[in-house]
Amino acid sequence: MANALKIGVAGLGTVGASLVRILQTRANALAVACGRPITVAAVSARDASKDRGILMDGITWYADPVEMAKQADIDVFVELVGGSEGAAEDSVRAALVRGLHVVTANKALLSHHGVELAKLAEEKGRLLNYEAAVAGGIPVIKTLRESLTGNNFSRIYGIMNGTCNYILTRMEREGLSFADCLKEAQRLGYAEADPSFDIEGNDTAHKLSILTTLAFGCEISADKIYLEGITNISIEDIHAAADLGYRIKLLGVAQKTESGIEQRVHPTMVPLDSVIAQVDGVTNAVALESDILGELLMVGPGAGGEATASAVLGDITDIAKSRPGAQEVPVLGRPAHLLEPYRQAEMQSHEGGYFIRLTVQDRTGVFASIATKMAENAISLESIVQHSKQPVTPDRPQTIILVTHATMESAVRKAVGAIKGEGYLIGEPQVIRIERPKT
Amino acid sequence: MANALKIGVAGLGTVGASLVRILQTRANALAVACGRPITVAAVSARDASKDRGILMDGITWYADPVEMAKQADIDVFVELVGGSEGAAEDSVRAALVRGLHVVTANKALLSHHGVELAKLAEEKGRLLNYEAAVAGGIPVIKTLRESLTGNNFSRIYGIMNGTCNYILTRMEREGLSFADCLKEAQRLGYAEADPSFDIEGNDTAHKLSILTTLAFGCEISADKIYLEGITNISIEDIHAAADLGYRIKLLGVAQKTESGIEQRVHPTMVPLDSVIAQVDGVTNAVALESDILGELLMVGPGAGGEATASAVLGDITDIAKSRPGAQEVPVLGRPAHLLEPYRQAEMQSHEGGYFIRLTVQDRTGVFASIATKMAENAISLESIVQHSKQPVTPDRPQTIILVTHATMESAVRKAVGAIKGEGYLIGEPQVIRIERPKT
Repeated sequence: MANALKIGVAGLGTVGASLVRILQTRANALAVACGRPITVAAVSARDASKDRGILMDGITWYADPVEMAKQADIDVFVELVGGSEGAAEDSVRAALVRGLHVVTANKALLSHHGVELAKLAEEKGRLLNYEAAVAGGIPVIKTLRESLTGNNFSRIYGIMNGTCNYILTRMEREGLSFADCLKEAQRLGYAEADPSFDIEGNDTAHKLSILTTLAFGCEISADKIYLEGITNISIEDIHAAADLGYRIKLLGVAQKTESGIEQRVHPTMVPLDSVIAQVDGVTNAVALESDILGELLMVGPGAGGEATASAVLGDITDIAKSRPGAQEVPVLGRPAHLLEPYRQAEMQSHEGGYFIRLTVQDRTGVFASIATKMAENAISLESIVQHSKQPVTPDRPQTIILVTHATMESAVRKAVGAIKGEGYLIGEPQVIRIERPKT
Repeated sequence: MANALKIGVAGLGTVGASLVRILQTRANALAVACGRPITVAAVSARDASKDRGILMDGITWYADPVEMAKQADIDVFVELVGGSEGAAEDSVRAALVRGLHVVTANKALLSHHGVELAKLAEEKGRLLNYEAAVAGGIPVIKTLRESLTGNNFSRIYGIMNGTCNYILTRMEREGLSFADCLKEAQRLGYAEADPSFDIEGNDTAHKLSILTTLAFGCEISADKIYLEGITNISIEDIHAAADLGYRIKLLGVAQKTESGIEQRVHPTMVPLDSVIAQVDGVTNAVALESDILGELLMVGPGAGGEATASAVLGDITDIAKSRPGAQEVPVLGRPAHLLEPYRQAEMQSHEGGYFIRLTVQDRTGVFASIATKMAENAISLESIVQHSKQPVTPDRPQTIILVTHATMESAVRKAVGAIKGEGYLIGEPQVIRIERPKT
């Protein structure tokens, strides 16, 4: 049997502690599968005294992950510190410079510095693996990076934030408001005390930016993603969606268009009978559409200590099964110096169906006025309904729901702007994009 | 850039011809992603004169795949001949003996000779890749073999035969009989002229046997799988299932039990709101349940020339990205000489819910008699309903549907046997197992 592969784990939170426990308790099975033992030789965390259920025999403790990256007697540096800068970035950089393999679960780090770090790893002939950074336990990185090499992608999309999906699922099932569901998610530990990073879509955007690069061969551009969170989704939208045969999900979508690559994160209506519509609660799902394969959808746990540890473990065992330095999978699907610049498609050029919910004063001519504004912007309507369970009475607010055929974002914005100008709207119009999965 | 990887493709049917075309038309993109060119150096098929849209410049033609495996100037032998014996087996064996890497899409070959071939590949230090052998374009082999190393599996199951799923989907959607849907599937090319291998479950069993080995670390035992096809499923079963909130799918299931590993292929009722219930038509799906990851479900094209070629291509690019002979992923998840003997669980010990449909002469006491036979075998019922849309009249056949809580297969068989002995049944009882997905 070959020499042991020596691992250093920086960050002993839920994921890190799970990982070290698994590496220790399943050492024999892992050695059989990998043809060599994997040993945890070093760990780094702030508090050395905390009991994490880890056997510390033979493990060197480092208070500073950067010091561990520079000095520990290890082959693989596992970064579970988190954050796009600071100790996470410095330690990963130091580990690669020194010629270690790196495994990380850090989506923020990769979405900000992924290309640079990939170049560094490739110059050094080392692996930089990051399966856990996107959609937790779902092996979407390996699938894009290895299984689907040679495919040309048209669209990738997914539910990549468990907090948002949990909130939307509960709103629908129990008829609760967004605010109530958010509180419940916080109570259960599915949402942070400051949930804005999740519910505003930033977390999904980070993940999407990495998948976009793998699918389309362009540089990572997390800052050029169109962003809309779910804070604005009401129970009325969810009910109206259901009536029309849709369910609302926060999707991250990257799509090839004539003018470039569209990257967008927004609440999306998906048909109720699509597979992705059934993905409930904190579960994640990623769909990949390409010309040779067709559509592949993967559904699984997007977060949680154990599921994330499983993805990190897969990255480590991949390294263990290779002779050190022998495998040469390009970090981002193709060598980093050959990635193309990101060519951003304008959101105004987005084409798709739209759901538009308007609350209006019910006076004569409103219905006709709305239909006219749509027609003036060449928007073809799939349906226009007055959505009310009570009989219509004059001067009582009414809800009007429009569903458009595929149309341009710019046309919808113009039409909605024109309708607002007419003065009969009560409150803000709600506009939700429709996405049609192939499966 | 490193030397070209030279490929020989044996078998130029739909998959083989697609593969060669893709390798030729995407040569540049593949060379970028793999860091070296991939060239098709040899092909083998019976008819040399047929136009397959392939450029034959620089390609050596072999009429005999075994001769190609033994003599061609290639690094990788791609077997797309098919069949568990004969030219497929001989050529793969010859290629491995000679020290070539092998890629195959041949589930029959692997389910019969997989362990032997894996030993041979591992002795020679060569790769034997077979992503396309199970569930076509879904990367389930790589996921089990690489991503989930270290996980302990409790259950794996899936829809792995597109023909059966197509037939069941159409029966439900259009209220057609099994026979009519089979004819339609044959007309559309989704079913063979002799469909028995698909509809009796053998094809699913071959695929399941390979997944079982990867998940549970035991030798392949395709001949010890409990088999029940879909020929017996009627439109009445499908309607009754829907009424109870279920849909019928042909599943292959492998499950760890106290007495060993259960492997079974049979029509199965899955809850309508489960994700797998939404998998329609020729699409495949595979679910993996393990202790660290939780549940992962993958949905995608299970057959078709292009989707299968995509999986074969992934296997080839994996080899291209490694220095020859450098990567050492064990063929079957752990080194073949360390696989454990297959310990078969008795089907009689299977535990689960059951749907039982009985047609009875409607006379006094039948309902009570059925309930008593169930109770005598300690079977707890979730529901027992007289399923009829017409009013009950004496001596008119009535349908009675029972759904049990989790119970033993042996108890169900005894109870059904006892009911048959009472003489009031018309025709055969229908018994369909219920499976509860976690997602």
